[in-house]
Amino acid sequence: MHAYRTHTCAELRQTHVGETVRLSGWVHRKRDHGGLLFVDLRDHYGLTQIVTDVDSEAFKLLERLRAESVVTVTGRVVARAPEAVNPNLPTGAIEVRADDVAVCSTAQELPMPVAGEADYPEDIRLRYRYLDLRRERLHANIVLRSNVIASIRRRMIDQGFTEFQTPILTASSPEGARDYLVPSRVHPGKFYALPQAPQMFKQLLMVAGFDRYFQIAPCFRDEDARADRSPGEFYQLDFEMSFVTQDDVFNAIEPVLHGVFEEFAGDRSVSAAPFPRIPYREAMLKYGSDKPDLRNPIVITDVSRHFEGSGFGLFARIVGGGDVVRAIPAPSTADKSRKFFDDMNEWARAEGHAGLGYITQKNGELGGPIAKNHGEEATRKLIAELGLGPDDGIFFAAGKEAQAAKLAGAARTRVGEQLGLIDAKRFEFCWIVDFPMYEYDEEAKKIDFSHNPFSMPQGELEALETKDPLDILAYQYDIVCNGVELSSGAIRNHRPDIMYKAFEIAGYTREQVDTNFAGMINAFKFGAPPHGGSAPGIDRIVMLLADEPNIREVIVFPMNQKAEDLMMQAPAPATPKQLRELGIRVVEQPKG
Amino acid sequence: MHAYRTHTCAELRQTHVGETVRLSGWVHRKRDHGGLLFVDLRDHYGLTQIVTDVDSEAFKLLERLRAESVVTVTGRVVARAPEAVNPNLPTGAIEVRADDVAVCSTAQELPMPVAGEADYPEDIRLRYRYLDLRRERLHANIVLRSNVIASIRRRMIDQGFTEFQTPILTASSPEGARDYLVPSRVHPGKFYALPQAPQMFKQLLMVAGFDRYFQIAPCFRDEDARADRSPGEFYQLDFEMSFVTQDDVFNAIEPVLHGVFEEFAGDRSVSAAPFPRIPYREAMLKYGSDKPDLRNPIVITDVSRHFEGSGFGLFARIVGGGDVVRAIPAPSTADKSRKFFDDMNEWARAEGHAGLGYITQKNGELGGPIAKNHGEEATRKLIAELGLGPDDGIFFAAGKEAQAAKLAGAARTRVGEQLGLIDAKRFEFCWIVDFPMYEYDEEAKKIDFSHNPFSMPQGELEALETKDPLDILAYQYDIVCNGVELSSGAIRNHRPDIMYKAFEIAGYTREQVDTNFAGMINAFKFGAPPHGGSAPGIDRIVMLLADEPNIREVIVFPMNQKAEDLMMQAPAPATPKQLRELGIRVVEQPKG
Repeated sequence: MHAYRTHTCAELRQTHVGETVRLSGWVHRKRDHGGLLFVDLRDHYGLTQIVTDVDSEAFKLLERLRAESVVTVTGRVVARAPEAVNPNLPTGAIEVRADDVAVCSTAQELPMPVAGEADYPEDIRLRYRYLDLRRERLHANIVLRSNVIASIRRRMIDQGFTEFQTPILTASSPEGARDYLVPSRVHPGKFYALPQAPQMFKQLLMVAGFDRYFQIAPCFRDEDARADRSPGEFYQLDFEMSFVTQDDVFNAIEPVLHGVFEEFAGDRSVSAAPFPRIPYREAMLKYGSDKPDLRNPIVITDVSRHFEGSGFGLFARIVGGGDVVRAIPAPSTADKSRKFFDDMNEWARAEGHAGLGYITQKNGELGGPIAKNHGEEATRKLIAELGLGPDDGIFFAAGKEAQAAKLAGAARTRVGEQLGLIDAKRFEFCWIVDFPMYEYDEEAKKIDFSHNPFSMPQGELEALETKDPLDILAYQYDIVCNGVELSSGAIRNHRPDIMYKAFEIAGYTREQVDTNFAGMINAFKFGAPPHGGSAPGIDRIVMLLADEPNIREVIVFPMNQKAEDLMMQAPAPATPKQLRELGIRVVEQPKG
Repeated sequence: MHAYRTHTCAELRQTHVGETVRLSGWVHRKRDHGGLLFVDLRDHYGLTQIVTDVDSEAFKLLERLRAESVVTVTGRVVARAPEAVNPNLPTGAIEVRADDVAVCSTAQELPMPVAGEADYPEDIRLRYRYLDLRRERLHANIVLRSNVIASIRRRMIDQGFTEFQTPILTASSPEGARDYLVPSRVHPGKFYALPQAPQMFKQLLMVAGFDRYFQIAPCFRDEDARADRSPGEFYQLDFEMSFVTQDDVFNAIEPVLHGVFEEFAGDRSVSAAPFPRIPYREAMLKYGSDKPDLRNPIVITDVSRHFEGSGFGLFARIVGGGDVVRAIPAPSTADKSRKFFDDMNEWARAEGHAGLGYITQKNGELGGPIAKNHGEEATRKLIAELGLGPDDGIFFAAGKEAQAAKLAGAARTRVGEQLGLIDAKRFEFCWIVDFPMYEYDEEAKKIDFSHNPFSMPQGELEALETKDPLDILAYQYDIVCNGVELSSGAIRNHRPDIMYKAFEIAGYTREQVDTNFAGMINAFKFGAPPHGGSAPGIDRIVMLLADEPNIREVIVFPMNQKAEDLMMQAPAPATPKQLRELGIRVVEQPKG
């Protein structure tokens, strides 16, 4: 018989009754029923009930042991009495009568219990992460994460992608977030940087002739923590493809994302591929956001035209001044009180907007100051054009286009949430496409890149030479799920001549381009294929699938929000010898 | 038709003749045959021959283009004339008559050519790594590496292992090699360390109740480079298992290693599982090494007894003084000159040893001073006991046991190499087991740990309390292939009581253990399972399979031996703003 186990704690069934088995695991729970002691023995796989008689050695030993001690139990599998069968437990039909118990490890009193899902302060949970990880939900989250990543890898390989490991000790990026630096001992005074993303490496892999690259890539940004962003490191499904159009990128990655969500969605539905492709301008109009949550059925409409010369003077003046009015339907709100509408207006003001006007309807009866001033006929016409029913209200966001769009988007989300219109049982994907290449920078009074200067402009060199820069779109795209941006991506600009021209429009000289982006532009001069890709965030995908709003619930050993690893006590002071070897000195002495 | 390609450059066959196709790739080679221009078009997948007529636009365009420019070719697939068929090329039966050629990217003059496998200085190769990576051998090595890693992952998952990502920004290790440090911006004066290995994390994962962990883990050691060690980062197949004996670890990983080697061995054989398990003392005796190359058929024998009171006074005195003589057979060396044997002796002296005595045989006729002095009868008895034939010579390594073993081992390798006995077409695995737990430190005049203080001693607490420490063996093991140590591993000591005792024997107090190893020992006090594992080096596995002695040939973007990334120009000076934010100052200004 094996020294520790013949079966796992999830394995025994009715068919094993009569066998002598050996199990090992943690003492999860003990229940003393007078003459009998019941122990739930737990391992990675599940729970099995162990029973001992009061007069056995095993009883005495288990009685003394604290929960979370580790034991090896040898005994006979017996069927539970019908009334004692636990249908919720895979091993619930049987129990093991302990003949012998050996202690592998005795547990001291615990700083937090493992059994049960009671809430504990995060600093205790992180300091004793190895205990917290034994708890059912977190344990399941981490296993889910591993399974999701394994599934992504398998699917990427099935799509013809090859995984490469790009360097972690590398050079500082010229742009982007703050780098983590690593002092070099061999070259005192010089530093490596940890990669914010393997962007340059993956593009160089394409230049090197590898066709379809991917990596579950560790990325590092020295930024402050947010709920969906861990300080320090995070993982992305980094990928890049050669000789592709934007559609090829979508067609390659959609089956992967759809497949992995479908695999782990449980009872939730996943939007079918191909995912909707929504131009940026349309998204900003209809959803007031470039990361729309398509589970929300509300669609925003521009109604500026309706308020030209309207009796509702405020909107008439806004529209007359060239600004806009946007309508956000609030379906089936006939039975909502005046307070519901006024609270929305207050919320908008609290968020720094001018306010959120509204029209109410109750069985076709109009309410609210806007309807009165705009006039019944005009209002009914507006309602008809919006396709609304007799119990649907409308909120209005008015002002400069960008601000009105933003307020309308936030109001759409809030109305959707408050009316319970967002179906938690769906994963809705979309691509946002056709981002503008340039925007006018009001402060600097000049044209600048909107997003990524390295994306290929639609129409390539000809567009740059002939079109109004503000009309040029880029082959740049975001993938969004349930309002969460999983990633940006682009077809890259692989041609030095187009790159010089694109930067010239944004006010950069050829020399500046050569200096700031030397590595990439030099490589492109030795034969570069057209290429593009993206990099969906792994942590965010797992958060969505695990339905966890806090990223620390899907990372096995996360840092806290102050970028500390409480379990390992990192960061920590270095020794004088270490600092001497690295040729650096600490200016400010560490506290504490 | 797709914008860039209907097929890859490895895809077209006789069956495609007559089709109009589109291919994209690099201009690999051009051959001008008067009226016809032949171009080998290359992509990640292969080569296809393109043909253009002298009077076509395509001809003029291709003629002007430099090698390594990227083009998209549209044309008709035609069968080659029988005498022009290239059986060595998968697409060698056809060629594509170019109707249209579009240039994706024009190449400048190259710093090194891509076609052909001529040698180039390493600094050029690393600076233009994206060109070097286009070359056939390196391209194939990197693809091999990716495939090996994917295969390992698949096999580990099939064995029930789960992959976890452990932190890269973590705490400095108390022991081992030199850490890379990362200054913390949020906690000035404090530092993270990059992990030398996820050793502590994987053990804590076992304490957390995960059963079978693995990771293709990036590891970081700030050590100087060697041929088989890259400066900076390297990868290992890190794994750990709970509730296991040493045999369970072997049984879990042998199918993975055997499987992956078999998959990529080509025409080379792989030793069948179970791999030989050789106790450390036996390995040191028979192979003079704890990483024996079992492809070498030579086995060392201790022949000390034979030289007790021998006429060969030197060996008699050595043996009389309690030291040893070891015999290294040199099979079928009858036709080797005296110089062969003398050169071996010279080599041993040059390596710092006293020398390497020898006996020669030619059809049973003895030669050399040892045979003469030892006496013919005694020598023939020795030869018979060693089971040698009449044309086999013998080398002797004599002296203190450890030194004699080391010399014998080196001589065994050298003899094997010089006699061509090492079969390059085999992969021979073995486990080295039963390492001693302690050794006597001659300098410190005390007992110390031989290898890893955290391994479980065989016999556990009882052995520590009752045996001579120098007789205690550890559950510690190495996996070796063809003389390359792929990894150390161990069944860990998971019990604080045994750990305190083990450290006490090596002269540490309980308080010192509590202070130096707080994280691990505290975790073990809350219920720890018996566990063990190992961490075979990925780079070394790929080097063996690719038959590359230089690790930089199996890493996509390696640093040079001076720990510089010549392509990315890392490390580099930091900006004053970066240093200010991190609260550090550079003591020595960077050179250059």
